[in-house]
Amino acid sequence: MYKRITAAVLSAFAMGSSAMAADINVDELRSLANNLFKPIPTADVVVKEKGLTQEQIDLGRWLWFEPRLSKSHIITCNTCHSVGTGGADNIPTSVGHGWQHGPRNSPTVLNAVFNVAQFWDGRAADLAEQAKGPVQASVEMNATPQLVEETLRSIPEYVEKFAAAFPNDKNPVSFDNMAKALEAFETTLVTPNSRMDQFLAGKDTLNDQELGGLKLFIDKGCIACHSGINFGGQNYYPFGLVKRPGADVLPEGDRGRFDVTKTASDEYVFRAAPLRNIALTAPYFHSGEVWSLEEAVALMGTSQLGTELNDTEVKAITAFLHTLTGEQPTVEYPTLPASTKDTPRPSRM
Amino acid sequence: MYKRITAAVLSAFAMGSSAMAADINVDELRSLANNLFKPIPTADVVVKEKGLTQEQIDLGRWLWFEPRLSKSHIITCNTCHSVGTGGADNIPTSVGHGWQHGPRNSPTVLNAVFNVAQFWDGRAADLAEQAKGPVQASVEMNATPQLVEETLRSIPEYVEKFAAAFPNDKNPVSFDNMAKALEAFETTLVTPNSRMDQFLAGKDTLNDQELGGLKLFIDKGCIACHSGINFGGQNYYPFGLVKRPGADVLPEGDRGRFDVTKTASDEYVFRAAPLRNIALTAPYFHSGEVWSLEEAVALMGTSQLGTELNDTEVKAITAFLHTLTGEQPTVEYPTLPASTKDTPRPSRM
Repeated sequence: MYKRITAAVLSAFAMGSSAMAADINVDELRSLANNLFKPIPTADVVVKEKGLTQEQIDLGRWLWFEPRLSKSHIITCNTCHSVGTGGADNIPTSVGHGWQHGPRNSPTVLNAVFNVAQFWDGRAADLAEQAKGPVQASVEMNATPQLVEETLRSIPEYVEKFAAAFPNDKNPVSFDNMAKALEAFETTLVTPNSRMDQFLAGKDTLNDQELGGLKLFIDKGCIACHSGINFGGQNYYPFGLVKRPGADVLPEGDRGRFDVTKTASDEYVFRAAPLRNIALTAPYFHSGEVWSLEEAVALMGTSQLGTELNDTEVKAITAFLHTLTGEQPTVEYPTLPASTKDTPRPSRM
Repeated sequence: MYKRITAAVLSAFAMGSSAMAADINVDELRSLANNLFKPIPTADVVVKEKGLTQEQIDLGRWLWFEPRLSKSHIITCNTCHSVGTGGADNIPTSVGHGWQHGPRNSPTVLNAVFNVAQFWDGRAADLAEQAKGPVQASVEMNATPQLVEETLRSIPEYVEKFAAAFPNDKNPVSFDNMAKALEAFETTLVTPNSRMDQFLAGKDTLNDQELGGLKLFIDKGCIACHSGINFGGQNYYPFGLVKRPGADVLPEGDRGRFDVTKTASDEYVFRAAPLRNIALTAPYFHSGEVWSLEEAVALMGTSQLGTELNDTEVKAITAFLHTLTGEQPTVEYPTLPASTKDTPRPSRM
């Protein structure tokens, strides 16, 4: 089946994109796609599945926009993972405390709950573990668990809100519970009903070029790494499997998952990027050095598949990737409580 | 009348705060207060009065949270004037491009539409003129009008939105219209229904200590600078009228309105801070060096009024100032459109 479709699509493309649809059995393609991918559920479904309470989510929303989690009091989770811009900051690598910049491009928070693990190297098992990283990283928010707890405990409204979110805890205001609440809020940041999800559900929402792109995405082998509910984010692969990209895209100093596992075979291995909403979050790759999605698609062809995708193919796959943009979450900016005399003061240093 | 009330209040305080209410004629105080202050209208009233359209406001909301107005693509209007934290950033002086910090404390955007002019020295006549400042300031967003226009014109959704907001303009996507749209959005950031506004409207929302504080606020002469709809923000006064504060609070290098007017009498003259929501926006004064509202009240007594307020008086005035916290605006975070290949790229430099 695999080969047959490949051949059919390739010949369709040789005839030009307008001929594509005629050569594609849409029902067959949809059925194949449903075996490979999975639609994103709405936030209420995920919340129920995870057993989260509204109190936890709402506390998490406060913390998400809380600048006092950073030593400077000006950096929030949303600074690098903005809910308004595809869940990321869309600059090559994030800028943090002291205008320092980290080594890797900020991954999107949208649908991150569905990733197998967090960070480009998967060093955090879940979103709660992940949340603790940037808060403490000296090039990001540059705080400490002690500073965060002291800050939150100094503000009565937070004490109350943590107690409501974690009613069975003897000591609810903790760094661990901060992370759990952030995870609860992030769990609501899902983007259902993309055109691709509607296609999976049986609607004819993709045009000829997009259908052709989907077929190519399957046939060329992109699905080897980018499948499942997030079209990626499920496993680890060497960047430059077939041909190693230049040092601008794959800096030698960043050896990826090797730094987590210390296993030689994990050198330059990264978690395959989830591709949902990818059209919203240029620049691409862990180095954030590729600004064009078409260029990124072409580079994946050469580096991972050993295939020189032609211009029509690149454009079709890119068009298909645009169908992965879902409904963006609606988030109300929280009104945060005032500091008190006991709240630690900000420091730029 | 002025003297009589002063004497009555002072004797009330001499007897301790529980005796205050008995000595205050609440109806008389309310009537006096209604001559001095004015309640904040709701946003829809202000919007109607100003003749703003929903399209302008909505575009302004996008721009308010738009990091691409800054050269780095990480600083937004909301970074220094967060709608979640009293409309300010609540650090001594704002941090901007390159982690530089400006010379003065970020003023709140809340109710700023009612100020006589903008900035601590009133150098911008209105919010539209003000909005152009931080976007261009090298220590803040570090962009240029050209860069902003090029950025906005590169994004079709912005082109559409500017055309809808300014339907009679031949060239709607302009730096000027960016500023006008921001002003339109900021006009909605008002905080009606504070307990003081409810008191002005005839409700008994202030307790004894707060009533005493209000009387002191009037009798001690705070109202000379802090009156009107914003309890300040209406005129310019020398900081240190009676006794000059130390250089920590009033740095010698910042001569205030003198830099605008070049008039000797404007040395160390600043716009009287509007006091609405003041309990939310420590630290205080243009230098942002005083963290305690009580300390700020006591300092105003010595520097502006030549009065050593006692502890009971300071506490009462501070309690009164807390009644100026209004209903904070409800703001939905906008979903911003993606950049295109023509969008200028961010630069940390």
